[in-house]
Amino acid sequence: MTLKVDEVLSMVGGTGENSYAFNNNIDKGKFGRPKAIVKQNVLELYSLLHPKNFVTADLGCSSGNNSFVLFSDIVDGINESCDKLSLSPPEIHLFLNDLQGNDFNTVFRSLNEHKEKLKKEKGEKFLPFYPVGVPGSFFTRLFPKNTVHFVYSTLSLQWLSEVPRGLVSEDGVALNPGNIYISKTSPPIVPKLYFEQYKRDFTMFLKHRAEEICSGGRMVLTYIGRSVPDHSESVGNTYIWSLFSRALNEMVAKGVIKAKDVDTFNMPLYKPSMEEVKLVTQMEGSFDIVEAEMMEPFWEFSSKTEDWVKCDSVKTGVLIAKEMRATAEVLLAAHFGEAIMDDLFSRLAEIIAEHISKEKGKHVMFTVAFQKRD
Amino acid sequence: MTLKVDEVLSMVGGTGENSYAFNNNIDKGKFGRPKAIVKQNVLELYSLLHPKNFVTADLGCSSGNNSFVLFSDIVDGINESCDKLSLSPPEIHLFLNDLQGNDFNTVFRSLNEHKEKLKKEKGEKFLPFYPVGVPGSFFTRLFPKNTVHFVYSTLSLQWLSEVPRGLVSEDGVALNPGNIYISKTSPPIVPKLYFEQYKRDFTMFLKHRAEEICSGGRMVLTYIGRSVPDHSESVGNTYIWSLFSRALNEMVAKGVIKAKDVDTFNMPLYKPSMEEVKLVTQMEGSFDIVEAEMMEPFWEFSSKTEDWVKCDSVKTGVLIAKEMRATAEVLLAAHFGEAIMDDLFSRLAEIIAEHISKEKGKHVMFTVAFQKRD
Repeated sequence: MTLKVDEVLSMVGGTGENSYAFNNNIDKGKFGRPKAIVKQNVLELYSLLHPKNFVTADLGCSSGNNSFVLFSDIVDGINESCDKLSLSPPEIHLFLNDLQGNDFNTVFRSLNEHKEKLKKEKGEKFLPFYPVGVPGSFFTRLFPKNTVHFVYSTLSLQWLSEVPRGLVSEDGVALNPGNIYISKTSPPIVPKLYFEQYKRDFTMFLKHRAEEICSGGRMVLTYIGRSVPDHSESVGNTYIWSLFSRALNEMVAKGVIKAKDVDTFNMPLYKPSMEEVKLVTQMEGSFDIVEAEMMEPFWEFSSKTEDWVKCDSVKTGVLIAKEMRATAEVLLAAHFGEAIMDDLFSRLAEIIAEHISKEKGKHVMFTVAFQKRD
Repeated sequence: MTLKVDEVLSMVGGTGENSYAFNNNIDKGKFGRPKAIVKQNVLELYSLLHPKNFVTADLGCSSGNNSFVLFSDIVDGINESCDKLSLSPPEIHLFLNDLQGNDFNTVFRSLNEHKEKLKKEKGEKFLPFYPVGVPGSFFTRLFPKNTVHFVYSTLSLQWLSEVPRGLVSEDGVALNPGNIYISKTSPPIVPKLYFEQYKRDFTMFLKHRAEEICSGGRMVLTYIGRSVPDHSESVGNTYIWSLFSRALNEMVAKGVIKAKDVDTFNMPLYKPSMEEVKLVTQMEGSFDIVEAEMMEPFWEFSSKTEDWVKCDSVKTGVLIAKEMRATAEVLLAAHFGEAIMDDLFSRLAEIIAEHISKEKGKHVMFTVAFQKRD
């Protein structure tokens, strides 16, 4: 039995205190580089194609809040290009995509607010835009052929279309016991199976986008990945999923859940290295990479760097666990049951707190800009 | 205080037994003529423009079920045109629009089912289509300029953007007491104010669509309207909203609600005559009417004509009241409160049953096809 991610996965919906919308608003400051790369690539693309109707798509929009952090730079890139070349500005069709289980109702109800904010921010440089929702997996076709100019995706491409096959054999033997992702204790077959799944998925992603994006069109993708070939992540302090496994194993020790439940669960995500992204892109052959840049933001995406450094570990552990919960709860609850979620995430908060009291955790994040080949 | 329809109105969401999705699936048989008109107009339009990416929009899609009844004819129209002219068929971008309070989550979760059904129905004539959700009022701009080929809208254009101003004066004097829509007892100012609002709204609708639809593009709109200039509807048996008022007035008599609550509530809808639609279209000036046809289906949209005739009045009263509830409950509850809804709709079911035991109720429905002027 293989978990079909597109049927199970969704961020926590609504706007309540456990929701993705409430907990996972990226801090603009931390996104300085991705924002600059989006703006520059839109500027270059618009200068080349200058369509009257600029079509852009955020793949993996979730609650939509983060879409607008980068959409602001798309508007800036277009305006700068129009000023340079004395073009009259276009209208923008903004396609917000996520899996069909995503809470689009919440996204749609927040659109007026985003529009008003953007109007205020841009003044006379505001451009009319028309937001729509596109339900479906970005590992399938989402748009008609040659209709999209610019695709962006932020912290979504770590998701796989399914848990790598073979991690649990058909008769239930687990190859990655005690872990829910690749860790120090995983045998070499585990990262190998994960990478194979990643390669299949990202190849499919590129193939579909190549059909949808018009000639000269671009993509800017921001990943949670890794900086070294080694998956045990001896460098830095980036192994947040190992802390998750630790919380689950604590619950096994207390008899709350069974060891077998942990052994047979593996997260359907993969943290690629930039080299792996480049390799798959080259093998697939539809896109050239025009820019790539690495960053190392602290774990807690939602608050400013200084807050994080000043903040005490207990409070921060709770905040990060909340971010993780909004992201992973629906998926975990489908396997372990709703009932243990409060327990799990309060343990996770404590483990994170203890961990970061010794060393601040970091993500490896990188942004890659692609141009479609002719 | 004016009720802003785009902030309050939505059909009842979800798929439960009170939902619009459950109760308001139009019977294909009753829609023979609108379906034929859609097909013919798409055929003519496609033969003229044959875009590789055919863009179509259903305005007022609600649960989406009814969208697909007519979408099937769009596919047929395109295929027939392609066969005649030996064109290779396009891909289709299908935009499903409704107010932002619409339950798009339910629409999106049902898309796979609609796709599979269409695949089965069309066989090798199935065309790849990409459905998206467009939240917003069709009295505002919804799409970038010149991007849409074909617009359709089914039983949605009776809604107004707001309750006609002046029906209740600022100091609370009601011009249409005891009624919630134009009726025999309404003074002449009432239909006048309603028509003025309709004229403003439909003019705005046409103006916006003229910007969005490309040259040669078409619209097919199906209305609930009236067949005679007189609003009291002495001809036929089409006054379903008067039965609604009767149910409310019964509740006033029993002391469940106050007379003032009924006096100050007016439905934000208008049943135009075909002549009025033609008049406003001519005055606005962006579209030519290329076809117009009138029908008189029985009140109960969801079941087949024979069922209706055979069916006993009590059972049918309940069914029609359920259809009405899925449409009007959210709006009525905002004014009268949730608490009285069960009572109101069970009275309505009884009143309808009694009424149709004497004479079967009919709607006046008409379908009008528009072509954008060059």
